[in-house]
Amino acid sequence: MTDSYFRTTVFVLMACLGYTGCTTVEKTESPESITVKSNNGEYPDYLYQYSIIDALLSGVYDGDLSVGELRKKGNLGIGGFNRLDGELYMNEGEVYKIRYDGSVHKVPDTEKMPVAFVKHFQADTIFTLIQKGMDYENFKSRLKSLLNCNEMYAIRISGIFPEMLTRAPAPGKKPYPPLAEHLKENQYEFGLEDTEGTAVGFCLPAYMGRVNVPGFHLHYLSDDETSGGHVLDFVADSLYVEIDKASGFVVQSPDDERFLRADLQKDRKKEIEEIE
Amino acid sequence: MTDSYFRTTVFVLMACLGYTGCTTVEKTESPESITVKSNNGEYPDYLYQYSIIDALLSGVYDGDLSVGELRKKGNLGIGGFNRLDGELYMNEGEVYKIRYDGSVHKVPDTEKMPVAFVKHFQADTIFTLIQKGMDYENFKSRLKSLLNCNEMYAIRISGIFPEMLTRAPAPGKKPYPPLAEHLKENQYEFGLEDTEGTAVGFCLPAYMGRVNVPGFHLHYLSDDETSGGHVLDFVADSLYVEIDKASGFVVQSPDDERFLRADLQKDRKKEIEEIE
Repeated sequence: MTDSYFRTTVFVLMACLGYTGCTTVEKTESPESITVKSNNGEYPDYLYQYSIIDALLSGVYDGDLSVGELRKKGNLGIGGFNRLDGELYMNEGEVYKIRYDGSVHKVPDTEKMPVAFVKHFQADTIFTLIQKGMDYENFKSRLKSLLNCNEMYAIRISGIFPEMLTRAPAPGKKPYPPLAEHLKENQYEFGLEDTEGTAVGFCLPAYMGRVNVPGFHLHYLSDDETSGGHVLDFVADSLYVEIDKASGFVVQSPDDERFLRADLQKDRKKEIEEIE
Repeated sequence: MTDSYFRTTVFVLMACLGYTGCTTVEKTESPESITVKSNNGEYPDYLYQYSIIDALLSGVYDGDLSVGELRKKGNLGIGGFNRLDGELYMNEGEVYKIRYDGSVHKVPDTEKMPVAFVKHFQADTIFTLIQKGMDYENFKSRLKSLLNCNEMYAIRISGIFPEMLTRAPAPGKKPYPPLAEHLKENQYEFGLEDTEGTAVGFCLPAYMGRVNVPGFHLHYLSDDETSGGHVLDFVADSLYVEIDKASGFVVQSPDDERFLRADLQKDRKKEIEEIE
């Protein structure tokens, strides 16, 4: 594949994503994001996360944060539900669950989760990425060349996906095993064909490993709200890409026995590479 | 050394530090902490940090956060100053610099720093630890048995120190080398004898490695404000110990070229073990 396949239309100066530290926001391409009002205290432009990825990896599949509380912390993000019952997808403040049987459900504010990562999304860079037969690796490679790997970014991509491969876990049974072990037998994959939809998530720096997932981490929902999941791969010819650089991150530490008893000493870098 | 050497007077139920998730606060032993008013938004009980330890380790010795801004984020903490000119010590909102020549200076709000870790300190557990000839290792071992290593704690210890070994770095010269390399030639140590004073800092979980310093990290100032530094070791017979468990942490990412160009991909775990 050569660069001639790439035809990237950049609506906002891409230098904003480079080393300049520029945070200019061009809203004209994303009118819906203008209406986003932050209520995240004095850290409105921060990524907020409840618990850490290493707790989930170690087998902490239950937590106390409710969806209602999470929605105060951001309007776009990803996570999981208690017992590991499905993938959490949040876009424009709406929260969905994609279960291991492929079904999609709107989630009530009372439902709880063991881990979640969200942000008040206000795209500061928007562009359309066009490449025939672009897969997830192509996309990541292209984005990495535009982003600074020391920064944190919330990402939203929309388009038509001739192919989209996702997964969702079946719920765990107590005593919960480490996540990588659980997924060996309980990961359900969905090869979705010709869907139109939106994937949301983050691209995070290596130094956040153990706290969150380094690199790209996206969850998908089709526009007709009938399919989705944790993104494993996809094929698309054109993607509308919105990026929101975060100014920092906030980690809420679960104050309960499950978290406090977890084995968080072990470095689970290999486990996360195995499952992502 | 046997347990008979230990005579620990615990004023507040130590179970608060265990697996119970108890956050009961007993203020009677620490009247000064009652007056602490948080202005850290909706995260008053969070550790706040500007930049990450890996940036400092990689050679980012300059930053843009002012002492005035830092004092809004907490009233107790540690850090460094631009160019690596001295150790930062903050207690009860007052900020001091301990330089490589051993001198101590009150710091104006305009001075800037590359990294700092602070908290609005409100001790939730207070006790006196008595052990003849207790050194830093004894202290850490004793505290570790009382704390939960998955939690974050701000710590303040006061007492008479027959011996206190501290350090401060000489300022770096551009281009700045990695911290471990700089300290090989530029670490000045101070063997302080018979001082009375207070050390402040944190005990943090392993999963915060790369973002902050895992384990104990304390800076010291003598009561007469003439000596101090980064704590390497000490001997004391009795310590007044105040502990404030944090509910989470906030990381502000420096939005400047020095941080963005830093090599933050490398895992610098060994370097941090070398210098701490």
